[in-house]
Amino acid sequence: MPFVTQKTSSFPIISPVCPHPNFQRTPATAMAMSTAIKRSAAAATRALSSATSSSILTRDLHASSGKKKIVGVFYKAHEYAKMNPNFVGCVENALGIRNWLESQGHEYIVTDDKEGPDCELEKHIPDAHVIITTPFHPGYITAERIKKAKNLQLLLTAGIGSDHVDLKAAADAGLTVAEVTGSNVVSVAEDELMRILILVRNFLPGYHQVITGDWNVAGIAYRAYDLEGKTVGTVGCGRIGRLLLQRLKPFGCNLLYHDRIKMDPELENQIGASFEEDLDKMLPKCDIVVINTPLTEKTKGLFDKERIAKLKKGVFIVNNARGAIMDTQAVADGCSSGHIGGYSGDVWYPQPAPKDHPWRYMPNQAMTPHISGTTIDAQLRYAAGVKDMLENYFKGEDFPAQHYIVKEGELASQYR
Amino acid sequence: MPFVTQKTSSFPIISPVCPHPNFQRTPATAMAMSTAIKRSAAAATRALSSATSSSILTRDLHASSGKKKIVGVFYKAHEYAKMNPNFVGCVENALGIRNWLESQGHEYIVTDDKEGPDCELEKHIPDAHVIITTPFHPGYITAERIKKAKNLQLLLTAGIGSDHVDLKAAADAGLTVAEVTGSNVVSVAEDELMRILILVRNFLPGYHQVITGDWNVAGIAYRAYDLEGKTVGTVGCGRIGRLLLQRLKPFGCNLLYHDRIKMDPELENQIGASFEEDLDKMLPKCDIVVINTPLTEKTKGLFDKERIAKLKKGVFIVNNARGAIMDTQAVADGCSSGHIGGYSGDVWYPQPAPKDHPWRYMPNQAMTPHISGTTIDAQLRYAAGVKDMLENYFKGEDFPAQHYIVKEGELASQYR
Repeated sequence: MPFVTQKTSSFPIISPVCPHPNFQRTPATAMAMSTAIKRSAAAATRALSSATSSSILTRDLHASSGKKKIVGVFYKAHEYAKMNPNFVGCVENALGIRNWLESQGHEYIVTDDKEGPDCELEKHIPDAHVIITTPFHPGYITAERIKKAKNLQLLLTAGIGSDHVDLKAAADAGLTVAEVTGSNVVSVAEDELMRILILVRNFLPGYHQVITGDWNVAGIAYRAYDLEGKTVGTVGCGRIGRLLLQRLKPFGCNLLYHDRIKMDPELENQIGASFEEDLDKMLPKCDIVVINTPLTEKTKGLFDKERIAKLKKGVFIVNNARGAIMDTQAVADGCSSGHIGGYSGDVWYPQPAPKDHPWRYMPNQAMTPHISGTTIDAQLRYAAGVKDMLENYFKGEDFPAQHYIVKEGELASQYR
Repeated sequence: MPFVTQKTSSFPIISPVCPHPNFQRTPATAMAMSTAIKRSAAAATRALSSATSSSILTRDLHASSGKKKIVGVFYKAHEYAKMNPNFVGCVENALGIRNWLESQGHEYIVTDDKEGPDCELEKHIPDAHVIITTPFHPGYITAERIKKAKNLQLLLTAGIGSDHVDLKAAADAGLTVAEVTGSNVVSVAEDELMRILILVRNFLPGYHQVITGDWNVAGIAYRAYDLEGKTVGTVGCGRIGRLLLQRLKPFGCNLLYHDRIKMDPELENQIGASFEEDLDKMLPKCDIVVINTPLTEKTKGLFDKERIAKLKKGVFIVNNARGAIMDTQAVADGCSSGHIGGYSGDVWYPQPAPKDHPWRYMPNQAMTPHISGTTIDAQLRYAAGVKDMLENYFKGEDFPAQHYIVKEGELASQYR
């Protein structure tokens, strides 16, 4: 593999091997332990007095010292685990931090068994201090599990997107939730652009012809287009959305974005995208709609039957954000009727997608399992990010500010 | 289809509906008929006296007046022909120029039947004045056919790449060969970037899991990478190569190019690519190699077993140029051994690819039939370009200079 030999030399990894401009850490503010304790105490108090809080808290405080029990929930790689020394994001390679953790006396349990009352994760919930998981094979941290987790202090997402955690319950319980912001934004943005092209260029019917021994250019060409000149709109324009727009710029598209916040005019001008304050005014203009918003109470089911009906007939949709932002059946129906010209993404609800998930069978889909944010490059970055945060945690120091999803009883702005 | 309703309103087409900066025509020089005749006579003389010429010429001269017989060889679209009013590149829709030609009294024969001594094309060879074909379903114009074609004056390629014509024989016979330079360069460059991403991100194994009811993130992730930070080298850097490099720029890759000619330093700097004079010194540096050179005597079989062995282990290869630039079996063997990590392209030798073509069955292929230059947008542009050239031809005027592949007995520089 060219990338293996080129990109890295040692394993387990120490630092991100593939740094990029969007993975710049703000220097961690060195904080005395007492400050951390004060903050956590304040958070616990706030949580207790919050109108939305209903549980009585008896928690260890964030960043208390001593040996910790850390539980990691990752996907199993089986025979693939040994095929690439940089494949750190699986159960077997456990982010490459086992030796480092155990040499300091911490306990490190790793599993992929995460569902139901008898699963491995459930067993370790009562005494875990830290739970690490990924969006690709998420250990769901429900309010019920949080209630049982008397020692729990820290929930780390190796990657981006912490909707597998009941964030309100976590905030109320005074837990800290953090993710490795920026660790795989480039990975996801690249993957989105690939999916746009796969749909617009009508790639898959051509590939099917090749493997079935066929050759029928017309059967592909009648609905294959250039991306040039088309209108692409992103629903949500955070880091991933911006990276996508930057990569789209040389394609000569008409670029639109909808977000809570308008970009800085200079950046907007540089990217060449137009702000659309009203989502429902933007959508009918789009030949291609890309979903780049986190899953929150507001975005759950955002694309239901009614909203899909307002899209341009034949629209292409790319969704690497979260499956539950879409109404599953409405998407399948839209693809069947042709109102949606193609749908591609790597996120499903639930995950893993069951064998009978309708998106597996609908026409003009270009779906994959949840993969875009777990490239080898991304794994190296988020494993390094998790290690850095654990190091800060053991020392009682703050994390880089942009990593926090729940801190001191408060949710990050995108989840409010 | 959003693009249909958005991009056009009338059929048959009159002018390119989707113009782009690379499709700028130089103003056709108005030439008196006598000048054209003089030039053609000069060419015929040159051809006769050429050391490589062996045939005796009795030709009508280029741009002579009168009713013409025009033969078009395109792919058949069957049921797809009516599915999109802009699908002009097929037999049924015949570039949208039938009414225009027939209203002027010209004869216009269109067929997809192009092989063997009894095919439809062969029947019309003796009295055709103009033959139009495409690289997607090429009517091969061999030396033997040129010999039989006593009335032939003009060979037009609807698209780019005229290697289906025996160019030497055409030059010796005083024929004019021209293509619609620029008509689908954006289409092909976009498609190449899609293929790079499909290989680097390991898309197809994920898609296969979806349609087979599987879910195994590890089986994809262990060899899925970001494009960012990788080294991409293009072999040949004409219009398509440059458009590809421009689109790659925001991905943060290390960009290399090999060509006969070094780019203008300003353009090189703007694109951010480094010139590699020696192909064999560039290749071992590349994680991804893209072929962007025409098929000529020099490039035929350029990637044989020996050259492939010099590539980085696990290299990804994208080839939308011509299949015969590769040694077919060497590519299949390279994919089987893993020396080639993935191979994607839409060009084959021969075309259509037979059912037992080894590239259909080799591992890690992401092949399609020849499609990248025949998107709907590209069809509209090359149909308009052919119409413009016919108009010039009927009037005895020159074509835009960059369209000529053979003119007055001389081959365009890229074919010499």
